[in-house]
Amino acid sequence: MEKENGAKPLSEVEEMTERWHFGHNKAAAAAGGRSIRATLSKVISSVDEKGPRPLIPLGHGDPSVFPSFRTTPIAEEAIVEAVRSAQFNNYAPTNGVLPARRAVAEYLSKDIPYKLSPDDVFLTVGCAQAIDIVIAALARPDANILLPRPGYPMYEARCTFYNVEMRRFDLLPDQGWEIDLDQVEKLADENTVAIVVINPNNPSGSVLKYQHMEEGVFGDVVPVLTLGSISKRWVVPGWRLGWIATTDPKGILRKTKVVDSIRSILDITINPVTFIQGAMPQIIEKTHDDFFKNIIYVLRNASELCYNTIKGIKCIACPHKPEGSMFVMVKLNLSYVVDISDDVDFCFKLAKEESVIICPGSVLEMKNWLRITFAVEPASLKAGLERLKSFCERHEKH
Amino acid sequence: MEKENGAKPLSEVEEMTERWHFGHNKAAAAAGGRSIRATLSKVISSVDEKGPRPLIPLGHGDPSVFPSFRTTPIAEEAIVEAVRSAQFNNYAPTNGVLPARRAVAEYLSKDIPYKLSPDDVFLTVGCAQAIDIVIAALARPDANILLPRPGYPMYEARCTFYNVEMRRFDLLPDQGWEIDLDQVEKLADENTVAIVVINPNNPSGSVLKYQHMEEGVFGDVVPVLTLGSISKRWVVPGWRLGWIATTDPKGILRKTKVVDSIRSILDITINPVTFIQGAMPQIIEKTHDDFFKNIIYVLRNASELCYNTIKGIKCIACPHKPEGSMFVMVKLNLSYVVDISDDVDFCFKLAKEESVIICPGSVLEMKNWLRITFAVEPASLKAGLERLKSFCERHEKH
Repeated sequence: MEKENGAKPLSEVEEMTERWHFGHNKAAAAAGGRSIRATLSKVISSVDEKGPRPLIPLGHGDPSVFPSFRTTPIAEEAIVEAVRSAQFNNYAPTNGVLPARRAVAEYLSKDIPYKLSPDDVFLTVGCAQAIDIVIAALARPDANILLPRPGYPMYEARCTFYNVEMRRFDLLPDQGWEIDLDQVEKLADENTVAIVVINPNNPSGSVLKYQHMEEGVFGDVVPVLTLGSISKRWVVPGWRLGWIATTDPKGILRKTKVVDSIRSILDITINPVTFIQGAMPQIIEKTHDDFFKNIIYVLRNASELCYNTIKGIKCIACPHKPEGSMFVMVKLNLSYVVDISDDVDFCFKLAKEESVIICPGSVLEMKNWLRITFAVEPASLKAGLERLKSFCERHEKH
Repeated sequence: MEKENGAKPLSEVEEMTERWHFGHNKAAAAAGGRSIRATLSKVISSVDEKGPRPLIPLGHGDPSVFPSFRTTPIAEEAIVEAVRSAQFNNYAPTNGVLPARRAVAEYLSKDIPYKLSPDDVFLTVGCAQAIDIVIAALARPDANILLPRPGYPMYEARCTFYNVEMRRFDLLPDQGWEIDLDQVEKLADENTVAIVVINPNNPSGSVLKYQHMEEGVFGDVVPVLTLGSISKRWVVPGWRLGWIATTDPKGILRKTKVVDSIRSILDITINPVTFIQGAMPQIIEKTHDDFFKNIIYVLRNASELCYNTIKGIKCIACPHKPEGSMFVMVKLNLSYVVDISDDVDFCFKLAKEESVIICPGSVLEMKNWLRITFAVEPASLKAGLERLKSFCERHEKH
């Protein structure tokens, strides 16, 4: 290759790099930037590693490592039995093992006025894959999807990845984070292919009233795709077992080939681990109510502690006490602090000075809000909130 | 909506269907059509369900359900221990749990002249996700990838999904399925971002000679991404544990941001089940050589039986005895049969008349070839091959 005068000759490697034109996938890079994971990694990197106190992680919503949130032995033994049976080492069928789909269909049918069939259920590698598949299935040129703000960034990441336009409607903090239905109506048009409703809401922790759901979302013809997983209820996000369930009384998803699209994607997509599918009927049918009640009890106390501590801090405010979920959304009032420029700056400085990790609202499209999880071991939560309080007091105007 | 004279009024559902403009993802539908799964489902659907004999599946490469191919109890107990420890119920880190990455790095380093570090390894949900991630990471406008013919359709499916141009080079059946290197040279240009080499080859079963690999692929600067999984060696495809390992002595993948791209995608992508990652060090380090030797012994006998039976059938021929893998590629000679139009027709009629499933070569871009797996219980293989033989004899010219 001819080089301009004075230019250094290319090394073999540089030449290779130029010649191969690798380049990277820009949509992928942009999508990755939208993840909570990537954001929290950056926040964690500003923790003072030589600090005297252990890191307290109030960023991620994953309490499974804490003793108070250990899953039920019934679920663990269901896995053990499935592995030892050697009946589930094989590739799973595209939409999942039948007894597992049946168990999920029955589980979901408890809360709705009709009965799902196993054929309405597609098993996925956690809820994250369910989001991936559904957005891929709905992606077509000019499509748009209505997303809640605050929301769950995996939707944003996948819309970015598949070039689907995102339009955001607000959840109203002063009305218990209810959906702004007028805004939804204005945003929707003939290219709107879905409205995302997260209930109980992640991250606000609010639970939608049935009547509000009905007005906002459910007619008796609108098809609904329900995405879920065992991650949160059984506190096993690492088990990666989720689902897509179609509720489509009028067959619209079938007629418009959305179901075919989901099947096509599943045909080329990885499935959840087969022996975990094999364990699903036992996990769902045999888990005692006491297990769930205890987890909810621990979460409720944690949520109270969190809410009450925040009430005593001047520069942050919590407009609504969480009723579900593992998070609380907190508004940062910049006029009460002296040397913090925004939510991201708040999180970085908190990490550096107090070794406490929380998630900046920006990554959820909520600038100058903070997302705090209370789903950690109660003693850690207490310590983390105390550190948060002294951090705030140190940075508040006097 | 105004309707033309005489047109039936739209029902509420039809109106909904029209109004919502769902439409489906055409790339996804096209990609799904390229899967072996989808093809084999169609073949299986032509089996006579009322037939007197059980179905013999020589289509998929998944022997895990057969007693002769049961995985080692060491692997099963490694899982049991990891689940019961409750140390691996959490979300895994983006690139995988460190001890698991270390174990994979050491495992892969045995066969190559340098030592991989754990940071060169990214754990994936089986090899299928590794393919997905790598093709997504390399996808950019105008990129092309060179793929072997015959090949593994997951590459085709993902290229279709991400709009990456595919260019195919031949593996030469009469030269032990070696790569046609001249063709590779002609196909590659400045937009070629990868050459796919599958070794031992799936589906041909050939093992590339080191010298051939060196000429074809490995300089000392060309970066290599090695994709693999425990699916085949441990006979546990349902456990969904694979990897991407980067061999990049000159740092080209880093400089061109391909590694960043992989990380970005992993940030928004599902990980392998955490407790299976937790079990990986034990699975890799403790499995006895005897287990692998026994599996290879069973496979070698099966491969011999398959090769020898096919030698005695006029209308099909096997140019090369498999040395690895679980498949044999067989050429169909249409001039020897009377009422079979092509490989797909052959497979459908075989399924209908004999309840034996094999895979048409067309789905691997090899029209009028057949892919037969010999990785089934030996008694089933024997029966399946006998049925194949009588099917062929019945349809051959006399």
